[in-house]
Amino acid sequence: MSSNTFGKLLSVTTFGESHGPAIGCVIDGCPPGLEIGADEFAHDLQRRATGKSRHTSARREADEVEILSGVYEGRTTGTPIALLIRNTDQRSKDYSNIAQQFRPGHADYSYWQKYGIRDPRGGGRSSARETTMRVAAGVIAKKWLLQRYGVTVRGYLSQLGEITPTGHDWSAVEDNPFFWPVAEQVPALETYMDALRKSGDSVGARVNVVADGVPPGWGEPIYGKLDGELAAALMSINAVKGVEIGDGFASAAQKGTEHRDLITPEGFASNHAGGILGGISTGQQVTASIVLKPTSSLRLPGATVDASGAAVEVITTGRHDPCVGIRATPIAEAMMALVLMDQALRHRAQCGDVGEITPRIPGSIDG
Amino acid sequence: MSSNTFGKLLSVTTFGESHGPAIGCVIDGCPPGLEIGADEFAHDLQRRATGKSRHTSARREADEVEILSGVYEGRTTGTPIALLIRNTDQRSKDYSNIAQQFRPGHADYSYWQKYGIRDPRGGGRSSARETTMRVAAGVIAKKWLLQRYGVTVRGYLSQLGEITPTGHDWSAVEDNPFFWPVAEQVPALETYMDALRKSGDSVGARVNVVADGVPPGWGEPIYGKLDGELAAALMSINAVKGVEIGDGFASAAQKGTEHRDLITPEGFASNHAGGILGGISTGQQVTASIVLKPTSSLRLPGATVDASGAAVEVITTGRHDPCVGIRATPIAEAMMALVLMDQALRHRAQCGDVGEITPRIPGSIDG
Amino acid sequence: MSSNTFGKLLSVTTFGESHGPAIGCVIDGCPPGLEIGADEFAHDLQRRATGKSRHTSARREADEVEILSGVYEGRTTGTPIALLIRNTDQRSKDYSNIAQQFRPGHADYSYWQKYGIRDPRGGGRSSARETTMRVAAGVIAKKWLLQRYGVTVRGYLSQLGEITPTGHDWSAVEDNPFFWPVAEQVPALETYMDALRKSGDSVGARVNVVADGVPPGWGEPIYGKLDGELAAALMSINAVKGVEIGDGFASAAQKGTEHRDLITPEGFASNHAGGILGGISTGQQVTASIVLKPTSSLRLPGATVDASGAAVEVITTGRHDPCVGIRATPIAEAMMALVLMDQALRHRAQCGDVGEITPRIPGSIDG
Amino acid sequence: MSSNTFGKLLSVTTFGESHGPAIGCVIDGCPPGLEIGADEFAHDLQRRATGKSRHTSARREADEVEILSGVYEGRTTGTPIALLIRNTDQRSKDYSNIAQQFRPGHADYSYWQKYGIRDPRGGGRSSARETTMRVAAGVIAKKWLLQRYGVTVRGYLSQLGEITPTGHDWSAVEDNPFFWPVAEQVPALETYMDALRKSGDSVGARVNVVADGVPPGWGEPIYGKLDGELAAALMSINAVKGVEIGDGFASAAQKGTEHRDLITPEGFASNHAGGILGGISTGQQVTASIVLKPTSSLRLPGATVDASGAAVEVITTGRHDPCVGIRATPIAEAMMALVLMDQALRHRAQCGDVGEITPRIPGSIDG
Repeated sequence: MSSNTFGKLLSVTTFGESHGPAIGCVIDGCPPGLEIGADEFAHDLQRRATGKSRHTSARREADEVEILSGVYEGRTTGTPIALLIRNTDQRSKDYSNIAQQFRPGHADYSYWQKYGIRDPRGGGRSSARETTMRVAAGVIAKKWLLQRYGVTVRGYLSQLGEITPTGHDWSAVEDNPFFWPVAEQVPALETYMDALRKSGDSVGARVNVVADGVPPGWGEPIYGKLDGELAAALMSINAVKGVEIGDGFASAAQKGTEHRDLITPEGFASNHAGGILGGISTGQQVTASIVLKPTSSLRLPGATVDASGAAVEVITTGRHDPCVGIRATPIAEAMMALVLMDQALRHRAQCGDVGEITPRIPGSIDG
Repeated sequence: MSSNTFGKLLSVTTFGESHGPAIGCVIDGCPPGLEIGADEFAHDLQRRATGKSRHTSARREADEVEILSGVYEGRTTGTPIALLIRNTDQRSKDYSNIAQQFRPGHADYSYWQKYGIRDPRGGGRSSARETTMRVAAGVIAKKWLLQRYGVTVRGYLSQLGEITPTGHDWSAVEDNPFFWPVAEQVPALETYMDALRKSGDSVGARVNVVADGVPPGWGEPIYGKLDGELAAALMSINAVKGVEIGDGFASAAQKGTEHRDLITPEGFASNHAGGILGGISTGQQVTASIVLKPTSSLRLPGATVDASGAAVEVITTGRHDPCVGIRATPIAEAMMALVLMDQALRHRAQCGDVGEITPRIPGSIDG
Repeated sequence: MSSNTFGKLLSVTTFGESHGPAIGCVIDGCPPGLEIGADEFAHDLQRRATGKSRHTSARREADEVEILSGVYEGRTTGTPIALLIRNTDQRSKDYSNIAQQFRPGHADYSYWQKYGIRDPRGGGRSSARETTMRVAAGVIAKKWLLQRYGVTVRGYLSQLGEITPTGHDWSAVEDNPFFWPVAEQVPALETYMDALRKSGDSVGARVNVVADGVPPGWGEPIYGKLDGELAAALMSINAVKGVEIGDGFASAAQKGTEHRDLITPEGFASNHAGGILGGISTGQQVTASIVLKPTSSLRLPGATVDASGAAVEVITTGRHDPCVGIRATPIAEAMMALVLMDQALRHRAQCGDVGEITPRIPGSIDG
Repeated sequence: MSSNTFGKLLSVTTFGESHGPAIGCVIDGCPPGLEIGADEFAHDLQRRATGKSRHTSARREADEVEILSGVYEGRTTGTPIALLIRNTDQRSKDYSNIAQQFRPGHADYSYWQKYGIRDPRGGGRSSARETTMRVAAGVIAKKWLLQRYGVTVRGYLSQLGEITPTGHDWSAVEDNPFFWPVAEQVPALETYMDALRKSGDSVGARVNVVADGVPPGWGEPIYGKLDGELAAALMSINAVKGVEIGDGFASAAQKGTEHRDLITPEGFASNHAGGILGGISTGQQVTASIVLKPTSSLRLPGATVDASGAAVEVITTGRHDPCVGIRATPIAEAMMALVLMDQALRHRAQCGDVGEITPRIPGSIDG
């Protein structure tokens, strides 16, 4: 089953375990001629990297990307682009003590039940380590979307535990280790996280990601809807437990007159829909929000069973984020960018390039 | 682009417009030997049918299912099962007045932008009419899951506007037109809906759907996760703006010690995860919740533009639900059932049937 | 498993059994705006129709195509196009006597072994009846290819038993019931077929199909090669046992200096390659040839076993072609057209439309 | 477009250019628990390796396979298996002189037309170098098929230029560098090849590949037929111009009474069908034959054009096989093994494991 491949026309296949020799991906379907260099991945990889600050896991990876194929003389050739990152900081011993136990809330148990065998080193395949390659692939998607259509994708942390932003300033987001949109709140977040780390516990978070410049018409009806594909892409990120488009769950209590976005000759008067109607982009900003559960690897003991079914207590001494949600921000950006690039290619296939189709006036003579 | 096909091993391809001659689907990959008759679709189709009660649209469809292929002597043969329903109650005139206008919040606009042409009769392909075939296909998935693995899928309305259930009683759900789990609240819902209809406005809703009896091990890692596939399937339902698994968005404010489900020799002590860890079922109840926006087709005037871009006011006089969320309940059940059957087949392909694999004790002699 | 769906971007899903209520298909991914009417299918369906002449099976089907969806005001809308044909001439009794036997050389046996159950009426799903929908879908592909790119697809019978054409004249092909390219040989073919029919035996045949006007660049490397997709598409036609591209099997005895097609500023000097190099079209005529085995349904008795494994003799009294290869000609055309349209869309997705890319001179300043 | 991925349930994605830093593949969907070691690839890789004898290209590659993921403690875990081979013997200068020219009969031209850019080093992506990873992936498929179902896949050279085998002895095939089934003919082949090499020309060949032990029921109807998938897989091998199943093109001149394989209580009396009926295996030996064109890279000058369209003469001085067909033998085995493993998993998904279904006697009481 090709369950490690994402996307239909721009397909990304990832491989690798957290503490195996390497992780990597194969990006297939990228248009030829895109200029790309091995040095262009560092920025976003650093944004998601563990070890970015004391507020995330202490694991330090060089995360040096090697381009193995698909690029010649600095340009994509249209053939598959393989990216490889060697795992340089493996501390398998950290995990040896849980090789026969199942961390509550962790994929240890379900992988073992499914496959009858699992790689316990750092969570093996189920580790967030895999998302490194999503971010790398996302760098290519972001660049192509910007160059070809002027589309930009950005994200920020919209909730940390019970703390929510008191405002929104894009310029602040990249200036703090929390991708937080309000500079004034950062000290409070630092204090909160320090206390959390001391306690040995973890906390959940929410991330918002938006795309600007998306032309109307991207997305496919019914089972290839832009929001449907976004939901699958974002839900596939480790620890994500929910996805919203536009107003999301707030829509339940809204009236139709509140929710519907009126249209004027100058454009839409609001954006409750999140830029998507009937699964197809409207030309407005595409907005999505996800929630990430608190990490299940804790220093605080928890009841569980071992592989023989006996009751045991587990404590995780490995390096783990007290809030995995923080560095999910660039991952969510990458997934949205990959979905949009895939949909851009799909639209081009069926309907030709953006602007090629001139909508006909229904009932007009030529119709 | 096969964007009208859903599922990988159990694939369902739907076709048809709201007011075209017919709607239908082709179900491919169903195991042979399943007993199925044309009369088995009526129950769930009736549950989702418009016209079920005065609280949903007045459109009345016979919705008689004709089995065109794939069944011989009352049993599936392993070849594609085609189901056809003729549209018998088409009132295209109801929509003629909006053929050149775009209802705010409706797919009219995005379809027209994407394809340059649209079928305005009843919303054409974007109409919830399409979900009839999902429910029909879901009947087959539900039956197979129950017969083969004892899995059941059920849903209920968990929010109507600002009203939420004061308790939960499965036996009440099928006894009222709202799929509401608390009988005592039904009169209040009736009153609420009557007032809403008079007002000409609409309202959002939330639907919960759960699966019992799902064995551990269903779902595929990374891009074929059970929760990822559920998110795509549920988000693809008309008007859905958000999907949650387990505790969903509440997880943002939770601590790891609150969220993680402890494991005892007798099983899990809680189910915040919604029965899925790392994208794979744990053997617990699988739980999901979706939100549906209020329908955008209102009798109350709204500002919009026509195909020439001129400002106009639109009023929808057609038959529409003041709350599309209500009859989304059987649709959500169908989508979850289809995802589970697809995952059951995918698991069987790679890992053999349930119970075939005996998880090995890591480090044990045979390992 | 979506094994009844063909094509990636232009996908065709067929359904229906030979003697079930109907056969049909769903065509997904067709660009919007293509003018198509229900009357446009008759010509090619008649070309493949059994009952076309006394040299093919006596089964007579009206084969009236009903367009169920995807077309509005005579134009495709971009939504799935469903086509339906009711089976009007079913004589199941013809087959009742073999319901418990396996015709030697027929799919009866393998279907029964795979599924444990089969529809014996006229071969059920394995009947060539299914190819009717391929031809119908091919009509749309042929029209789009011609209108959009000026591509034409034509076929002819290139061998009937031991008889081969003494020349080639396209104008003759459509003027005889054999799609034979040499008018003078037709009387001999008539005599041959009459004798064959009297004998109760059948014979094999070879069909050539060619596409003119295919631009260079269609086809995808490695596993999506134009010739690879053609091979799969043509081999999927009932009774086909071999596929050749260009010189095909003659290449085994050729020298490199004989086979390679030299290139001049005016173009290629020959076409041994069949218009495909490295899986990608070169701009030359695309040529393929297929062989069809003699039909296995004979009036002459043959040894076989029944469902209980006992030895029996089988005689087929149903209506069958003494040479199924003859009417495979329009089917092969349809499959090549569908492959080309799919590849045209795939090329458009990754590389933009034909002519959009200007090949760069390697090492030139801009490169 | 995922055109570099092969297989539906066992999917293999390959990447890499002939003279890039590395080639590799990702194998997704392999069942867990299969024992596999990095040393198990050497045998088949050596069989296909260039430099195996003086009769094939002088390029010498270590072809050391590194397992990057998916295997833990010597067993597959069910997660994607990534294999990597570093290119150690790159002589790009060999190709610099043709960077701006198109070798007649080579993919140089079509790649350049499609993508507008190409990697000229050793043919880049279009080089047979890619098939190294198919053979590596095939090693896993062969092992699984043998262990799980007792299926074996073997191939041999069945034609070299005009020379055909005078008999067939499996024991001889692996004892000569030509995979030739008749030991006595080997000296003649040596002489033939020496003369060919001196002449600077090349020659075509034919390879037969067979599978023993395939159970009845593998293969999916219509567009997932076993023979259809084999045709696509085998035609995707570099230089292949034709594929036959069973009697192949000889069927054109056969009578139905000659071709049909009679069935006795002891089994089939012959195997003209090549073990496949209606696209589904019958339980007999599965047989296929392919033809490979003579390599287009010759020391003998050929007329062509350069990137500017000017007429030039090209001579290839790089290392090339005078007969690429010889080492296609293990490649064809690998492709057949991959197709069979994929179909085995697909059958298991829909119909359960082999033997799980008990074919019902049509019309019997339980039916």
